[in-house]
Amino acid sequence: MAEDIKSKVIKAKKASIELSSVSTEVKNLALEAMAQALDKERTAILDANAKDLEAAAELKKKGKLTQALVDRLKVSDSKIDGMIAGIRDVIKLKDPVGDTLSTLELDKDLILYQVSCPIGLIGVIFESRPDVVPQVMSLCLKSGNATIFKGGSEARESNRTIFQILVKAIESTDGMPAGAFQLMETREEIMDLLSLDAYVDLLIPRGSNEFVKFIQKNTKIPVLGHTSGICHIYVDEYADLDTAWKVCFDAKVQYPAVCNAIETLLINRKIADSFLPKMAEMYLGAGVELRCDEDSYTLLEKRGLSPLSRATEEDWSLEYNDLILSIKLVNTIKEAIDHINTFGSHHTDGIITENASRRKAFTALVDSSSVMVNASTRFADGYRYGKGAEVGISTNKIHSRGPVGMEGLLIYKYILLGKGQVVADYAGENAKPYTHRKLDLKFENVN
Amino acid sequence: MAEDIKSKVIKAKKASIELSSVSTEVKNLALEAMAQALDKERTAILDANAKDLEAAAELKKKGKLTQALVDRLKVSDSKIDGMIAGIRDVIKLKDPVGDTLSTLELDKDLILYQVSCPIGLIGVIFESRPDVVPQVMSLCLKSGNATIFKGGSEARESNRTIFQILVKAIESTDGMPAGAFQLMETREEIMDLLSLDAYVDLLIPRGSNEFVKFIQKNTKIPVLGHTSGICHIYVDEYADLDTAWKVCFDAKVQYPAVCNAIETLLINRKIADSFLPKMAEMYLGAGVELRCDEDSYTLLEKRGLSPLSRATEEDWSLEYNDLILSIKLVNTIKEAIDHINTFGSHHTDGIITENASRRKAFTALVDSSSVMVNASTRFADGYRYGKGAEVGISTNKIHSRGPVGMEGLLIYKYILLGKGQVVADYAGENAKPYTHRKLDLKFENVN
Repeated sequence: MAEDIKSKVIKAKKASIELSSVSTEVKNLALEAMAQALDKERTAILDANAKDLEAAAELKKKGKLTQALVDRLKVSDSKIDGMIAGIRDVIKLKDPVGDTLSTLELDKDLILYQVSCPIGLIGVIFESRPDVVPQVMSLCLKSGNATIFKGGSEARESNRTIFQILVKAIESTDGMPAGAFQLMETREEIMDLLSLDAYVDLLIPRGSNEFVKFIQKNTKIPVLGHTSGICHIYVDEYADLDTAWKVCFDAKVQYPAVCNAIETLLINRKIADSFLPKMAEMYLGAGVELRCDEDSYTLLEKRGLSPLSRATEEDWSLEYNDLILSIKLVNTIKEAIDHINTFGSHHTDGIITENASRRKAFTALVDSSSVMVNASTRFADGYRYGKGAEVGISTNKIHSRGPVGMEGLLIYKYILLGKGQVVADYAGENAKPYTHRKLDLKFENVN
Repeated sequence: MAEDIKSKVIKAKKASIELSSVSTEVKNLALEAMAQALDKERTAILDANAKDLEAAAELKKKGKLTQALVDRLKVSDSKIDGMIAGIRDVIKLKDPVGDTLSTLELDKDLILYQVSCPIGLIGVIFESRPDVVPQVMSLCLKSGNATIFKGGSEARESNRTIFQILVKAIESTDGMPAGAFQLMETREEIMDLLSLDAYVDLLIPRGSNEFVKFIQKNTKIPVLGHTSGICHIYVDEYADLDTAWKVCFDAKVQYPAVCNAIETLLINRKIADSFLPKMAEMYLGAGVELRCDEDSYTLLEKRGLSPLSRATEEDWSLEYNDLILSIKLVNTIKEAIDHINTFGSHHTDGIITENASRRKAFTALVDSSSVMVNASTRFADGYRYGKGAEVGISTNKIHSRGPVGMEGLLIYKYILLGKGQVVADYAGENAKPYTHRKLDLKFENVN
């Protein structure tokens, strides 16, 4: 392993300890310094970005880069405005460190506090979007976590410039430790980073499904994120038709390239005749390719709708990320729930129904991080969920699930304050009993 | 892979969905049936255990099993009483499933609920202690999680008998799904289980450090637990001496074989003269081997204390689990904190001090799951922390940390209840604003 990677990681890990106890005031001063530095150094950022764009244009000519990637790479003055506004939003967020989550008296003068604290050292690996650096750095700083960044090589100049501007602003703020934020620049360094599970506490990869899968397969470090987003809506026989048409259209068409758009529409057979033809018409009008199972194909063909494709078994497991939708008729809500739990990615799934017991069954039995009732799956998003900023969307079953805000960067420690108590007095014969009484004390107020 | 393992796991995973929405009443009836069945089937359990003990005696003769392992294997009538009492304790615990953790209005009639739910399918792998089965099964059942058990081969007969009695009791309770609890019996099956990360959501290994390390190294499934327990106490210059002597003695001597006993004592040089000689005398009197750094060795030698050993650099990373203690003098609290964060296992560490700013620095900067102030490290334990039952002690930095009770078996899902809202109305020009207003509604009360 390149020694400088390991030494960068160790440096950041050491700084993470200091950073964990920096006061809210100092953290906010550092964030404001970051915002002002970005504003002052616009020219340097745009110049660096121009170099990346030039190189990207060359790669695009050779067919090695798509236009979409080039677009995501571009930094404009208004994007810098967005970065600055994002940092100032984080200043407004409540400091999540040092909150007393619970307080329990174990015995007289023996009080157990559960107090929130940063996770430690986070590794953020992302593809070519330079605005990730200020966004993630501000969230990590506010939550007291040190961070190692690795951006896409296409954005190397932009990332480096933005990173250096921000770190200079942070480290010139009185009371901030040095070395808490580090940048890695080569692809080889990723493999090194993935092996440093003794130091890195959490990885947040942001990018394509393949990219996230690669990270998950090659590290022992916990990974926060999701690979695929195979989302469904089930239109129940008790659906309100207007709601169903409107919501199912939005969930596929409003922005098909994202993880919370639906890929499969499940329809209760009893409502298919009244619901599906108009729905299909709306989709076809918006240019959606419809991949139908046997029965929905027959139904739509009879009504003279075209063009129609046939869904194969494979379609149920595909994330199209495009204007393509698979359609299946089901006999019961149970069949729909089984289909979703079997083929879905436990990300976001919805039901359209006016029936309370159907709603209850669906929300209880669908094993997904977000379950929507009579609302579009597209709402599953950190900003829409009121989190201010999104760290990612997690399909993990532990720690943080669904859209994750700053709360996903925190854990807790237990602090026991005593007056010389020993376990020997609470064990064996004549053991003293524990009181286990909940108290309303805050650790931050203990003098 | 042996097909029956995969099919057992898939069966349990399917049943986990049903189990997740079983009512509190039905779960408590199943728990009571478990308790009564154990009581009724004592003879069968003791007979099965006798077979295991007989085989164990043979192995012990051949030197393949220690007496400690044989002791842990033994089931007596009073141990069965303990199992029954443990199950009835779990009946008394509040059902943790379906709690509304937060409620947010995104817009009029568009309400986001965050609701607690089971994790899904848990794998519990343990060495030879048959009482683990009823304890873990009752916690998993109450929290709505399906479970795969794999016990040590030495306890095969006992585990199988207890398991079958409990499953029969559960599955004969009206409303409980079949197949949620499964038993694996061979060592080969562990490797199969470890590879089934598509189905198993969490592993809880209980056993030796090597055993837990082996599990961690060989699976992509999240592992809840800890490998080593290298715990410290730092005796600050502002320590109350009586407190220091009492607490440091308890933390090493009261039960040295466990993970929360201390392995290293760090002493501020300014208090070493007045504190250490009497402390060493107490330890030597209890048969503790003292491995001293250069300066503490010199200090104690001068006072004529013996026998003393010398600590090597390696000692700072050793978990003795025995009556052995390493001792080091430090110049500052910072040096103590650095030592603990560098060589410790982030499990449990303590400070003895009467000084508030020293206490604050230590509790803020020591990166451990439990931090003790003027109290023994031995208090770090699920029972003592008032959790009723302990799932394990975690040194993970995500999800659950420190002693973990039933709360470690839960996660949440987001449920969004709407009236046909679509994202298109909240995007682009003339976008509707989100209200993001906190509400006091409970999802369980929504009709």
